[in-house]
Amino acid sequence: MFRNFKLVPKVIFGRGCFAQLDEIVGDQRQSDEDWAVFVVDDVFKGTGFADQIPCNDKDHLLWVNTADEPKTTYVDALTAEVKGQAPTLPCGIIGIGGGSAMDLAKAISLMLTNPGSATAYQGWDLIKNPAVWHAAVPTLSGTGAEVSRTAVLTGPEKKLGLNSDYTVFDQVVLDPKIVTGMTKEQHFYTGMDCYIHCVESLEGTYLNEFSKAYGEKSMDLCRQVFLADDPEAADKLMMASFFGGMSIAYSQVGASHALSYGLSYVLGTHHGVSCCITFDALEAFYPQGVKEFRAMMEKTGVDIPRQVCADVTQDQMNTMITVTLGLDPLWENCLGKDWKSIMTRDKVRALFEKM
Amino acid sequence: MFRNFKLVPKVIFGRGCFAQLDEIVGDQRQSDEDWAVFVVDDVFKGTGFADQIPCNDKDHLLWVNTADEPKTTYVDALTAEVKGQAPTLPCGIIGIGGGSAMDLAKAISLMLTNPGSATAYQGWDLIKNPAVWHAAVPTLSGTGAEVSRTAVLTGPEKKLGLNSDYTVFDQVVLDPKIVTGMTKEQHFYTGMDCYIHCVESLEGTYLNEFSKAYGEKSMDLCRQVFLADDPEAADKLMMASFFGGMSIAYSQVGASHALSYGLSYVLGTHHGVSCCITFDALEAFYPQGVKEFRAMMEKTGVDIPRQVCADVTQDQMNTMITVTLGLDPLWENCLGKDWKSIMTRDKVRALFEKM
Repeated sequence: MFRNFKLVPKVIFGRGCFAQLDEIVGDQRQSDEDWAVFVVDDVFKGTGFADQIPCNDKDHLLWVNTADEPKTTYVDALTAEVKGQAPTLPCGIIGIGGGSAMDLAKAISLMLTNPGSATAYQGWDLIKNPAVWHAAVPTLSGTGAEVSRTAVLTGPEKKLGLNSDYTVFDQVVLDPKIVTGMTKEQHFYTGMDCYIHCVESLEGTYLNEFSKAYGEKSMDLCRQVFLADDPEAADKLMMASFFGGMSIAYSQVGASHALSYGLSYVLGTHHGVSCCITFDALEAFYPQGVKEFRAMMEKTGVDIPRQVCADVTQDQMNTMITVTLGLDPLWENCLGKDWKSIMTRDKVRALFEKM
Repeated sequence: MFRNFKLVPKVIFGRGCFAQLDEIVGDQRQSDEDWAVFVVDDVFKGTGFADQIPCNDKDHLLWVNTADEPKTTYVDALTAEVKGQAPTLPCGIIGIGGGSAMDLAKAISLMLTNPGSATAYQGWDLIKNPAVWHAAVPTLSGTGAEVSRTAVLTGPEKKLGLNSDYTVFDQVVLDPKIVTGMTKEQHFYTGMDCYIHCVESLEGTYLNEFSKAYGEKSMDLCRQVFLADDPEAADKLMMASFFGGMSIAYSQVGASHALSYGLSYVLGTHHGVSCCITFDALEAFYPQGVKEFRAMMEKTGVDIPRQVCADVTQDQMNTMITVTLGLDPLWENCLGKDWKSIMTRDKVRALFEKM
């Protein structure tokens, strides 16, 4: 069985295309009563960029905090807040920000039409009803959240996404001009999320020519951004992110992401930096990729946190290992069907202790 | 203004995924009365492949002849034939074949819901009503028809596509295993359609990083197919075609395609070979591309028709020039806004005489 892959059906790309967001959202308004929700990372509060968001009187501007990774409890609270705004559902949810803000927008658009807590839908294809129309405006490039069929959430028991065809955005607005103002660390960590999942996709057992074509070009673009001083870096990293997301959507990520889920679940480490920490420990799995990653780290002048598990208790370590080993498809992609005989709890522990 | 680009929303890729077509079409059947139309190139009549098409008793198998390029009159006749099958519209149109069969399927799906002759819709965004759900199964790779927003037709006055968001397929089935049995000439000409539109896209004034990323990877794949003996050639050319289509959808083709439209309109030359003939005369416009194209031609052992305009009358030549110069966006992409002062009728005539 091959996956019948759901793609984002509408994409607008170009420096300045953010100005067309008003018109794009307008197409969703069928009557004067229709209202939209702009889910915006609160790092933009009080900035000039916030003033450009086409949020009119009827609309709701929902500032979201992404200091922590998105949690199911936070999604439930935000969904309740949106429901409390009006007796009717909004006609659109527009996520503006990095991977966390985009994943929150996806999750809210799904939870408005699916009853109960987001916790109940962490997994694969558990969502039953189509979401409210939802769009993404990435302001950071790398995660691939703009094209993926998941909204990654941390719940009471696990860090696992709401994976479904309904999760996929209905519209993506790719404006490289608005990707500005991040620190070099944010730029590096988020970009490396893309580079790392391309390595995992290209070295994985699930690979086909579809994922390969997207993954190879994405890596090529990452090299132009992180190993050269390309003047079109913002445009290129935006495309790298889009292509990287397309590559893993048809194949899968691998060991670095599996380990990062365990690490983030226990330590709350942000996804991008978490992937960098785990990938750096995987020289034996991805020798070429790790070598090039270190060259990019040196060129960018960013270092990653070290000895992150030094103060972890045995209980915490056990939880980290359990969460990590719960991601079957990631390990199968990395090591093949026989992965359970290779990746023992002791081996995972040794990897965490090395980080 | 940036174009808000409509993408094919569902794609399945893989060797053997054609076997899932029955299930995919099944998802469109809401009741036992629902019927589908399989628009299939008649070169497959009587072949083992035809037996694998999941056409059941209620469905209609519409053999189409692609010896000539698709004409508006042919589309009108085929649409009438489909309408005559049942009092209700079909629930899906599935095009199986190369660019011509796919374009016919697109056109029929549009004309079932839009009144009058297809001739009335040759142009940009003239289609007013959504099409019947339509899917493509390419059996030849290169045209990019599986992802484009056009269905190219020859009408009484012009060769021009039905360009609209509604034209885009709702589903594409990419199975490299079924791309077999074509002659080396078909393989080369159709593949070169892809290579040539990538050159035109990458050398064009409309280029952005979106089109560039897709176009560069597509050319890279074409090189692997036509300059090396790649064992995954069928898979790679299928991805090259998909990426090539994505590249021109956001930018535009150029001089070779503009000239090919004039040539095909008058001489009826098939699109792929027509592009090869015109591109070979464009060394001054695309020096690197033409050089590489000739290397691919030599490696494949295919030659193109020569002196094709030797017996053309002055009237025919004038028509060829008029059709060619009517394609404003193609020339603007190739030569910039000032193209009319550069590309005179005499220059076009000289190019045709060289072919």
